[in-house]
Amino acid sequence: MTGVRALVFDVFGTVVDWRSGVAREAAPFLARHASGTDPGAFADAWRTRYQPALEEVRSGRRPFVRLDVLHRENLAAVLPDFGIDPAGVPAAELDELNLAWHRLDPWPDAIAGLTRLKSRYIIAPLSNGNIILMLDMAKRAGIPWDAILGAEVAQAYKTSPEAYLRTADVLAMRPDEVCLVAAHNNDLGAARRCGLRTAFIYRPAENGPGRTPPGPEHDWDVIAHSYDELATAFEV
Amino acid sequence: MTGVRALVFDVFGTVVDWRSGVAREAAPFLARHASGTDPGAFADAWRTRYQPALEEVRSGRRPFVRLDVLHRENLAAVLPDFGIDPAGVPAAELDELNLAWHRLDPWPDAIAGLTRLKSRYIIAPLSNGNIILMLDMAKRAGIPWDAILGAEVAQAYKTSPEAYLRTADVLAMRPDEVCLVAAHNNDLGAARRCGLRTAFIYRPAENGPGRTPPGPEHDWDVIAHSYDELATAFEV
Repeated sequence: MTGVRALVFDVFGTVVDWRSGVAREAAPFLARHASGTDPGAFADAWRTRYQPALEEVRSGRRPFVRLDVLHRENLAAVLPDFGIDPAGVPAAELDELNLAWHRLDPWPDAIAGLTRLKSRYIIAPLSNGNIILMLDMAKRAGIPWDAILGAEVAQAYKTSPEAYLRTADVLAMRPDEVCLVAAHNNDLGAARRCGLRTAFIYRPAENGPGRTPPGPEHDWDVIAHSYDELATAFEV
Repeated sequence: MTGVRALVFDVFGTVVDWRSGVAREAAPFLARHASGTDPGAFADAWRTRYQPALEEVRSGRRPFVRLDVLHRENLAAVLPDFGIDPAGVPAAELDELNLAWHRLDPWPDAIAGLTRLKSRYIIAPLSNGNIILMLDMAKRAGIPWDAILGAEVAQAYKTSPEAYLRTADVLAMRPDEVCLVAAHNNDLGAARRCGLRTAFIYRPAENGPGRTPPGPEHDWDVIAHSYDELATAFEV
């Protein structure tokens, strides 16, 4: 990986465990409004609305809005699926629940590996999450980013090429000086088409028990089973 | 300062000593191309072209371009003042010298004070410096920012209102939840007009020997003589 100067990271699923975190944050809400609901199923349902909402922006049908706005809309939209009338819940309570995405825990091996990588490389999120979402998450969990990059800085959602190319541009680097780390083949494929280097990291628990996500489907530049392996592959 | 959740910082002069740093970085270049030149005078001359270049963008006469681009143009423009023909110097050598602004040292009290403030507040630059400039500077000097904000994220240069208001917006905060820290009255005045809180910090050495800058000219919310005093004023 000669010439790589910055590692940029997908975050939801790659650095943090979104499903457990959202389920944990939603549990007290569900106990009040829809007792008996499985919080994991609620997290899945909320997350299922994520890609279609991004697609409205990626397609140009909707101007760029930050992910907190899309999450909030998706939350209101998903409540009826669990028998909850959104009009019957105070807006402030939904606003607070929406911050669940700001309070996700890193995978247990992430911080140590990121800290190693930071000693030699610029490390930053290249997430669809907006700046304050990533910032709150990092501050709560101690994720040692050098900067918060991603969709809001680029004003484009992955997997649009602009999300990757504008990130390389603000770093004043050629795309091949930047490596995307992700647990998702489609994200890495889009990055590779823009000229970035690619590192796949296995995150088998992302989707919850009994639903192992796909492994690497292409010859990504690095394939790692852990953040420890990732850091070693980058010689730190 | 009840209700403040983020402290955002002017950087050139407020957090780092731009004049000494640029002079240090320019000295070997000047020794090669204009021996006998005072590196401090060269730093002053380069910096003098800063505000007029920003004004081209603030006025709308020129679309937003990052500060690295303006610094590079200003470098080429200032060389003849020191008897150097810019066409006679390899572009790569000027590109390298332009990185002087990425290699400035913090004032001796800054890191300790910022580290204290970070324990309770979000801390970020709100500088006219672009993202990679601030990022390189922070990584070299160990400045513990939570995020890199400022002109490039806001796509507007201070003292345009958009620089302050868009920064509060990406933080998802009301302007009065954000405090600007600066050693410059005009920056604080513009921030106050946008509703931000204001903290003046004395940096008497900014302009070099024998040229003490103005002290606080208004009743800023906080007036501090050091980063230690600043942190204490914010009760950390």
